[in-house]
Amino acid sequence: MATPTPTRQRRRGHDPESVLATAVGVFNERGYDGTSMEDLARALGVTKSAIYYHVPGKEQLLSRALDRALDGLFEMVADERASSGAAIERLEWVVRQSVRLLIDRLPYVTLLLRVRGNSGTELAALERRREFDRFISRLVTEAATEGSIRADVDPGLVTRLLFGSVNSITEWYQPARGASADDLADALLKMTFGGLRVDPAA
Amino acid sequence: MATPTPTRQRRRGHDPESVLATAVGVFNERGYDGTSMEDLARALGVTKSAIYYHVPGKEQLLSRALDRALDGLFEMVADERASSGAAIERLEWVVRQSVRLLIDRLPYVTLLLRVRGNSGTELAALERRREFDRFISRLVTEAATEGSIRADVDPGLVTRLLFGSVNSITEWYQPARGASADDLADALLKMTFGGLRVDPAA
Repeated sequence: MATPTPTRQRRRGHDPESVLATAVGVFNERGYDGTSMEDLARALGVTKSAIYYHVPGKEQLLSRALDRALDGLFEMVADERASSGAAIERLEWVVRQSVRLLIDRLPYVTLLLRVRGNSGTELAALERRREFDRFISRLVTEAATEGSIRADVDPGLVTRLLFGSVNSITEWYQPARGASADDLADALLKMTFGGLRVDPAA
Repeated sequence: MATPTPTRQRRRGHDPESVLATAVGVFNERGYDGTSMEDLARALGVTKSAIYYHVPGKEQLLSRALDRALDGLFEMVADERASSGAAIERLEWVVRQSVRLLIDRLPYVTLLLRVRGNSGTELAALERRREFDRFISRLVTEAATEGSIRADVDPGLVTRLLFGSVNSITEWYQPARGASADDLADALLKMTFGGLRVDPAA
């Protein structure tokens, strides 16, 4: 009986999830600071006057998008596999999961990595990132203490260089024709934990 | 006899080198596209009308700045130590030199890594970066062929993950209180070539 009006159909096409996904795409392309509500309206195909019906506000979208990446990191930290067992196994698992998360939520992680602290929302996101970094750094220290990774490199430096390699994936990964998340994680773990050099004695 | 006028003194304070250094600082802070000639005038402490006396044009400054980073990379490629000897030694030397170059020309390399191809100048810079990447990728292949690095990871992937770690240094390095270029290079080479894992049999 109640046939939806075209307006309703259009609005239905923009559930919160698809609005968020579209907005994150625009933020990554134009930069968050360079994105106007008008840009978001254009990307969503709605009029300038209708945009506030769909979008609560730019900063709220940013906050939700950053949480999408950060919540993934902290679910990982809270997982059984990150908290029990040998530190080296936990560390390798966390690195592998980080690569998977990055590929799975690529636009959200890309956005997170570009945050520089220009607003309250960005500062809060940076603080959560630092908390994650401290978790990794402690794990590296534990692995060195248990004697399963080399102890002659500063754990903070290892954390940064290791995640520098992980995070760089956002710079060049192309979902349509790239390697799978597991192929990437394998290559990264082989290089950073196994090492590139082949033992000439082996 | 000819005492310089205050204007002359001010102009002398802005030799091409210091203009370039100031401009690169502003580009990195505000983003190249977000920087106006007025921003550059303010940073140089000259009036809006005097800026064209000091600055040939925004894109020329960008071009010079990117060359400062890229020329460094290609001087390295042309060096004897990058072209003769075992591939593994050449590869390690190039990685170490890349870290040194990055620290030595930090703002220039930072700018280069942010280039996305928005103009002819940026596209040319990206093409030179890709040429450098191909050089590294060939070196990784040679090292795998000579049997000195593991052959079970794609050379293109190794190149990206390895330089992902190198390039990430621009994200967090603080010249005033950071490790030296050689400390950083040591940590990076130990992790990526030696591997983090300690052989339990050793």
